[in-house]
Amino acid sequence: MSAGHELHLKWLGIDTYQEAVIYMRRDCEVCRSEGFEAQSRVRVTRNGVEIVATLNVVDSSILAPHQAGLSSAAWHQLDGHEGETIRVQPMPPLESLVALRSKIYGNRLTELQMQSIINDVAKGRYPNIYLAAFVAACAGGRLDVEETVALTRAMVNAGQRLDWGRAPIADKHCVGGLPGNRTTPIVVAIATAAGLIMPKTSSRAITSPAGTADTMETLAPVDLDLPAVRRVVEREGGCIVWGGAVNLSPADDVLIRVERPMDLDSEGQLVASVLSKKVAAGSSHVLIDIPVGHTAKVRSPQAAALLKTLLDHVGRSLGLTTRIVLTDGSQPVGRGVGPALEARDLLAILKNEPTAPGDLRERALMLAGALLEFCGTAADGTGIAHARQLLDSGRAWTKFVAIANAQGGLRQPPVAPYTHPICAGSSGQVSAIDNRLISRAAKLAGAPSAPAAGLDLHVMIGSMVEPGMPMFTVHAETPGELEYALGYLETHPEIVTINTP
Amino acid sequence: MSAGHELHLKWLGIDTYQEAVIYMRRDCEVCRSEGFEAQSRVRVTRNGVEIVATLNVVDSSILAPHQAGLSSAAWHQLDGHEGETIRVQPMPPLESLVALRSKIYGNRLTELQMQSIINDVAKGRYPNIYLAAFVAACAGGRLDVEETVALTRAMVNAGQRLDWGRAPIADKHCVGGLPGNRTTPIVVAIATAAGLIMPKTSSRAITSPAGTADTMETLAPVDLDLPAVRRVVEREGGCIVWGGAVNLSPADDVLIRVERPMDLDSEGQLVASVLSKKVAAGSSHVLIDIPVGHTAKVRSPQAAALLKTLLDHVGRSLGLTTRIVLTDGSQPVGRGVGPALEARDLLAILKNEPTAPGDLRERALMLAGALLEFCGTAADGTGIAHARQLLDSGRAWTKFVAIANAQGGLRQPPVAPYTHPICAGSSGQVSAIDNRLISRAAKLAGAPSAPAAGLDLHVMIGSMVEPGMPMFTVHAETPGELEYALGYLETHPEIVTINTP
Repeated sequence: MSAGHELHLKWLGIDTYQEAVIYMRRDCEVCRSEGFEAQSRVRVTRNGVEIVATLNVVDSSILAPHQAGLSSAAWHQLDGHEGETIRVQPMPPLESLVALRSKIYGNRLTELQMQSIINDVAKGRYPNIYLAAFVAACAGGRLDVEETVALTRAMVNAGQRLDWGRAPIADKHCVGGLPGNRTTPIVVAIATAAGLIMPKTSSRAITSPAGTADTMETLAPVDLDLPAVRRVVEREGGCIVWGGAVNLSPADDVLIRVERPMDLDSEGQLVASVLSKKVAAGSSHVLIDIPVGHTAKVRSPQAAALLKTLLDHVGRSLGLTTRIVLTDGSQPVGRGVGPALEARDLLAILKNEPTAPGDLRERALMLAGALLEFCGTAADGTGIAHARQLLDSGRAWTKFVAIANAQGGLRQPPVAPYTHPICAGSSGQVSAIDNRLISRAAKLAGAPSAPAAGLDLHVMIGSMVEPGMPMFTVHAETPGELEYALGYLETHPEIVTINTP
Repeated sequence: MSAGHELHLKWLGIDTYQEAVIYMRRDCEVCRSEGFEAQSRVRVTRNGVEIVATLNVVDSSILAPHQAGLSSAAWHQLDGHEGETIRVQPMPPLESLVALRSKIYGNRLTELQMQSIINDVAKGRYPNIYLAAFVAACAGGRLDVEETVALTRAMVNAGQRLDWGRAPIADKHCVGGLPGNRTTPIVVAIATAAGLIMPKTSSRAITSPAGTADTMETLAPVDLDLPAVRRVVEREGGCIVWGGAVNLSPADDVLIRVERPMDLDSEGQLVASVLSKKVAAGSSHVLIDIPVGHTAKVRSPQAAALLKTLLDHVGRSLGLTTRIVLTDGSQPVGRGVGPALEARDLLAILKNEPTAPGDLRERALMLAGALLEFCGTAADGTGIAHARQLLDSGRAWTKFVAIANAQGGLRQPPVAPYTHPICAGSSGQVSAIDNRLISRAAKLAGAPSAPAAGLDLHVMIGSMVEPGMPMFTVHAETPGELEYALGYLETHPEIVTINTP
């Protein structure tokens, strides 16, 4: 094999959303001598750092013949600078492609095969089409329990793993699907106020209008590197940071690249994604909230039981102590849906304001109580009372402020400049609220990338409404997004069901 | 919904291999007002033509703020010109995405759901990640017979359909997997010389070093539009053209965009791909060759029987008369592997040259004979003799020349400037040749995009070899590709197995 060809970097600044792409002229010596064409996989090295990129062939003068461009993701991976030399070589077919094809064709994967795929995923060697095919080939119950264990372990092995040198290390997770169900920051505040160690790494939204990291980011910086996370946890006993920045399960972060635009979040991937991050974060005790409801992510008690079994089994195989709680998933929780609106609810609860949404408060207390008992901080049956005392007394709020300041400073969540109320068209009682349509509308309004965007709910199941009474308000950061969400809502009146007497 | 925003086209000439991509500046008014980000799906219109493109966000000065760029595929779809105005709008989520997700999660698709997916695929509305997920979700036996029928019918409905106003209309297909097995042009020449109507549309290679269209293209133009195909067939009774140019199964052509780089060709897709093109081409009688061998695409008689059943059932459901022939797939056929090398073998057979490879000649005669009987042109038991007479007498060659001239002119296949023999390392008898490794090496040498590239085989199973005797010769159009194929061969001596006495 040749040592490769030299080209000089030109900044094109093309953001492909994380996919590594190299741009080379069709008439350059490299393309011609290597027979490269669009979509060829190319190995690119600079100063000993190597990435694999997908080739896009350029037929215009945006590049000179001796120049190459990189997508922004590839540019940053290589720490590129204008004019610098890179070397490009043909990329031999990835060994793990044999395993990937085998899975696509319906075969079981061994631990070794799974590890080979996940290593290549974590190293950024898979183009989006391989990632999408892998995710699809593993969805729909096509990973068995042992494969899910293997996937989880492979994800842990492919990243960093933290060790806190003590136990228990508490963690708490919600499988999602319930808009506004943002209990995590409250639980962390209560648990750490009770003396538990809880270094919480959270994800950004994959298919929802907000992840815990998105919401927390409107209140404090969450993009902390590992030394910073350690400092915060040593000082305050806990943190609420974005997991992606600490490289705990890099393969999972890459897979999200295709899961998000496809709105996919399959069972095996979900379990591996959740538990790999817990293991990598050094957690010992993990409490998992599974909301169950017709329009939640988990739709039936049967599906919840299956997921619980899988989480328990995989957790145990990876050395975790898990406790799984099934909760009511029939409607959104709290009032706000979207990063800043949810943050506003959190603040009201932590500060014991009279406007605080009671349903979110009670859920957070129940989960915090279960965690205190489970980790041995409270005796069985006394967890909720203990948690309530920490919240009511303001000690949880004091702790939350301390954590936010340790992360870089507590701040006020932004407020959307464009809002529009959606009113009831008839009088009666609200009998259902569709979680999926609520999430969809909040996303169309711009959440989570527009942090102030989302929905603010004014009714819940059981509320009595009159014609013209606002049921919820759409918040957006741009007129286009507001209009877009409103257009969607006009054609989906079933988002709130009103029983007319 | 707004009528969209205006931007002016700038030619960037970025070839993404058929994926429609739009490039817009992050700071342009459209991105800001619509909340667009990398990977947003955008509806782009110009002069009433609409496409859906994936957004790549630009942070450099390759675009001015009021400008947008398009990938070459999108540029051509919109018939773009520098400076012209396009309108961009947010793309609402595709309705068929619900069906796609349902399939990924393991559910059966109804005919309507399948049609909705395939319509969006054919119209270019799916980005590569959706295509890859769809292909993976349907692979590995995850399409049942009725879904395969639905997929096939949907593919037919999404494209043009020819009607020749008479019957029978003969067709012949090989499921592939056997390097060098290029019988189609010979069968067309014999069948049309016998008076059959055989408007043959062929594909380019998906995962192999050559498709029939690639090989034929080295002998005559194959990129004919529909009126041209009609003229050729009216005049000569048959043709050998590329199916992609006549838009017979556009959805299939789009799916190949992800099947090729992933080297995927699953059973349900294969059946739907093959039969949809036959139905759309107006064929009534279809002969299908399934080579069976350890290293062929179909590896066992059991797998062949299953595939035969599926092809028969789906063909019948779509109104085709099918005949399926299982053939020996234990080793490559003929001498050349790669477009031009296979074309050279075809010419030798059609011209009755003494150097013509006998195995390829006999396979073509067997298939042509079966087709003549099956379509009622020869009495049962007399097909091969009739076919042989047409070939030996030169009438098949005369007809082939006439067809090639009608398509635009017979030409000489190109010859590779770089060749290198691979010699036996020991003496003995050849006991096995690995079809997959042969194909792989031919592709690494540049086939099919470099038409003169490939392998030229000098031995077959049973051949006696001595150390230093050439077993095959690698042909390449560039030194880089030659080196690349030789590097691969060095590490894969098992490509030819020699039994030492």
